Amino acid sequence: MKTVYNERHALHAATHEFFRGRLVPAFEVPARADYVLKAVQAAALGEILMTPVDHGLAPLERVHAPAYLRFVQGAHAEWQALGGEGDAFPAVWPVRSLRSDLEPQSFAARMGLYSMDSGTPLTAGSWEAAYWGAQASLTGLDIALGEEERAAYVLTRPPGHHAGADFFGGYCFINNAAVAAQAARDAGLARVAILDVDYHHGNGTQAIFYERADVFYASLHGDPRTEYPFFLGHADERGAGTGLRFNANEPLPAGSSNEAWFAALDRLLAQLQAYAPELLIVSLGVDTYGGDPISHFKLDRPEFVEMGARLAAFGAPRTLFLQEGGYATEAIGHNVVAVLRGFESR
Amino acid sequence: MKTVYNERHALHAATHEFFRGRLVPAFEVPARADYVLKAVQAAALGEILMTPVDHGLAPLERVHAPAYLRFVQGAHAEWQALGGEGDAFPAVWPVRSLRSDLEPQSFAARMGLYSMDSGTPLTAGSWEAAYWGAQASLTGLDIALGEEERAAYVLTRPPGHHAGADFFGGYCFINNAAVAAQAARDAGLARVAILDVDYHHGNGTQAIFYERADVFYASLHGDPRTEYPFFLGHADERGAGTGLRFNANEPLPAGSSNEAWFAALDRLLAQLQAYAPELLIVSLGVDTYGGDPISHFKLDRPEFVEMGARLAAFGAPRTLFLQEGGYATEAIGHNVVAVLRGFESR
Repeated sequence: MKTVYNERHALHAATHEFFRGRLVPAFEVPARADYVLKAVQAAALGEILMTPVDHGLAPLERVHAPAYLRFVQGAHAEWQALGGEGDAFPAVWPVRSLRSDLEPQSFAARMGLYSMDSGTPLTAGSWEAAYWGAQASLTGLDIALGEEERAAYVLTRPPGHHAGADFFGGYCFINNAAVAAQAARDAGLARVAILDVDYHHGNGTQAIFYERADVFYASLHGDPRTEYPFFLGHADERGAGTGLRFNANEPLPAGSSNEAWFAALDRLLAQLQAYAPELLIVSLGVDTYGGDPISHFKLDRPEFVEMGARLAAFGAPRTLFLQEGGYATEAIGHNVVAVLRGFESR
Repeated sequence: MKTVYNERHALHAATHEFFRGRLVPAFEVPARADYVLKAVQAAALGEILMTPVDHGLAPLERVHAPAYLRFVQGAHAEWQALGGEGDAFPAVWPVRSLRSDLEPQSFAARMGLYSMDSGTPLTAGSWEAAYWGAQASLTGLDIALGEEERAAYVLTRPPGHHAGADFFGGYCFINNAAVAAQAARDAGLARVAILDVDYHHGNGTQAIFYERADVFYASLHGDPRTEYPFFLGHADERGAGTGLRFNANEPLPAGSSNEAWFAALDRLLAQLQAYAPELLIVSLGVDTYGGDPISHFKLDRPEFVEMGARLAAFGAPRTLFLQEGGYATEAIGHNVVAVLRGFESR
């Protein structure tokens, strides 16, 4: 399988983040992708494209509000021009009874308007890293939909699935899975499925397609009652309007067994089987790993291989793997390779 | 004029807050109320009740969600039981497309569900200080509605006007003005007006009464496009449903002249005159002072006297002054005394 690598990922390098109200060393660090690259190279999985093809801003604007993209693009320069030092963090949010329909002048206020948490540092290189992550995803899509290949893996960070149409959060700025799914639709595919196996629910992806039948979002993840992102990802969220029945969540208690995890995966795959997508996008977080420092499932190498095998057995005409979370830095690469090898072994 | 003092205010003592994404020394400190108490005593304004009468939780539950009150009451103990040290801060918020209708189990998530910013440290004594601030407000209301007096001043902190029905923020936990207004209604008064002269818009108070005609909320404040709370307080917010035309905002640009400030005050007083409230509650922030460290109006001693005189000339049958903001710590007392003296001189 070919890999598309976002070589600019390291431009997004935060030193600290706010975690449960405290400033702690960042979890989402460049070394994550570096280790995966080494593992992919060592495994000789296939060609690695080191430079994604630039598809421009238009595909991003198909899922994100242009005003939001403009803000993220210029935010760190604005922060510096105001005398800000280091990374920028938001501090006030338009929750219930507050307005989100006006863009304030204040930089601090716009940071809050366009975000959902204080755990996502906006750094000098966040925009460029995220922009090229989306380009890597689009390049991977081109490969997966092409004549030579039927699948591709996109190695990028920061991840994407928490980013909403107009907000960043959960380490995410651009929703790569949503951008790729929309681009596939725009390329003429009728039905796209996104299967999100990251430990955390992909609230951004779900919300972007919640009222649509043409992109099915399915996720198994730590129960949001106790796990980030807390405010979305419940079992009763089945889509709305024409999107009703095209959203499926399998929240599992922290500490769930591998048997429970695979049973939930199979339930989702059965639903997606009935949907018969022309493309399966896998939001591939490997923070389901037993050794992950901020997650609480128990998958290990054999289970990652098995996951890949089941995704292959699913038999989607085309499959695109996009890197999401995984914070046991040195293990991520081995876990990802296990999934991809399991997929290719079928 | 009698003063009701919340002697337990100092139980809420934060060392730091997040201000525009940075951890800085707290602005809302116990010394604020200490200086005001000294100034009120020195001015011999009248009797000072050092211990408010406990009216219980029921009047607070008339404006705040019981689940929210329960959370704030137990939050710091819960934070400590989880191993948290010092003050607690939220870190993730249910903005657009995220759900606010379920209370998560996670403490971190409930901190976010029930707040709007990261600038309001939840300390070991926050609940008790805020609870007794509400009791002081209710005690002040009893005095203002009684046979002996026609007005009262409540000296308390933390302030209240940013607190919504179910969230804290802007240094506020319990909305004292809303609690007092509702209690006045429950005591049989037909029409209550709240005039908010704090530099910051009282988003919580506005939202609580936005669809009601029995409590008129009027505010003049720094334009939310550039000033906290950013996401509410615009001129087009005139109430909704049966509350339409019973909400009035006068946002003024940072740096506005005193002439502009008094012109806006007079416009609001004219509207309230037509409303003919039986009680006027003044959310008395004195961060409109030229020397305030986080605000940008230019009032000084003569203008505070003039403000008091115009409020007296307004001629409400009963008037209740509630302390809100003001962060030029040593000047707050003199500014408050100036308003109250101006009021009594008429």
